This record gives sequence, structure tokens and C-alpha cells, in this order.
Amino acid sequence: MLDKTLRMNLLYDFYQSLLTQKQRKYMSLYYLDDFSLGEIAEAFEVSRQAVYDNIKRTEAMLEEYEAKLMLLAKFEQRTELLTQIKEAIESNATPEEIMSMLDSLEKLD
Amino acid sequence: MLDKTLRMNLLYDFYQSLLTQKQRKYMSLYYLDDFSLGEIAEAFEVSRQAVYDNIKRTEAMLEEYEAKLMLLAKFEQRTELLTQIKEAIESNATPEEIMSMLDSLEKLD
Repeated sequence: MLDKTLRMNLLYDFYQSLLTQKQRKYMSLYYLDDFSLGEIAEAFEVSRQAVYDNIKRTEAMLEEYEAKLMLLAKFEQRTELLTQIKEAIESNATPEEIMSMLDSLEKLD
Repeated sequence: MLDKTLRMNLLYDFYQSLLTQKQRKYMSLYYLDDFSLGEIAEAFEVSRQAVYDNIKRTEAMLEEYEAKLMLLAKFEQRTELLTQIKEAIESNATPEEIMSMLDSLEKLD
């Protein structure tokens, strides 16, 4: 499992279009720009608790979307296989071997 | 633009996990199993209009998800590029050329 902050950054990358504008603001300030809950609360003139609750709910939503769509998991599988294909080409694998790896890549979708 | 039925089948493939159980039932009977609205209405003991409204709303939801996440569009781009890479290997492209196409594939994500 990735470090929580890195994972939230990645999930946010994949699913931010499904969030409300307020959720996007809070999440990007907290996870991308490293603002504290208190700083976000002050900037939006709401309570620290309100910011905390919103971010916790958003984190749960991102994990629910990932459980359903698995965009991050599939991205990681594709990236790993692509790395293997590049290594195979660098070690002079045969065209047949490369083709077979490309077939596997296609089947990941 | 793809034929409507084919497009709905593909969008359903990508986003069915985001639909309710009832939406999935109606959509799969209508688009995958080719039932008529009347047949679905009879099977679920609801009006034909209720089935029609549900399916129309679901179609709109699928298009909204695609507008936000573009899973079908990205899938089509990846598939097209993979086909080009395979063709390049078959025409004996250099390892450098294949590598560069694989880089493009990686950047699609």
C-alpha cells in the first residue's frame, strides 16, 4: 500500500472530475499544497471541523470510486507491464516475445 | 461517432459499477439482451414509460461519466496506438522507434 498522502494525490488525479468544486478546493489545498486544516478553515471562514469532515468524506468517496472503477490499480498494472516491455526490448527480445507482451497489455483494459 | 447501441454497450462496460442494480438490470436487458421496453416493463411489473425514463436517465448518466472520466475515449486511443506498435514490429521497425511509440502510449494515461 502506498503512503496515504501519495495515494490520495493519485486517487485525486484520477477522480477529481467526479468531486464538487468545494471538495476539489479543500483536497488540493490539503494534499497538493500542504495547507493545514486550520489554514483552510481560516481561508474559507468555516470551522476546522467542517473542513476535516469534508476532507474525510472526500477521501472515502475517492476510495469508493477506486473500489468500483480501479483506475489507479489498472494504471499501475499497465505501467509495470510497459516497463517490462521496454526492458525486454533493451535486452533484445524477439518480435514474438514483444508481441505477446503487447497482447497482455491490451488484455489489461 | 459510433452507432448508438454499440456506444451504449461500451459505456455500460466502463461505468456499470457506478449504476444502481435496477439501472444495470434494465440496461443489460435492453442493450445487451435486446429486450423491448414492453418486455422489460412486463417482467418487472412496471409501466413501459417507467422503463423508458429509467433507461434515458441512465444513458445520460453514462454520457456524463464519459465527459468527466473519458475512459472510452482513452481506451480507444490506447487501442489505436497499440495496433500501430504491433504493425511497426511486423514491419521490422527499429527498437528506438518502438521505444518512442511505447513512450507515447505511457503518456496517454
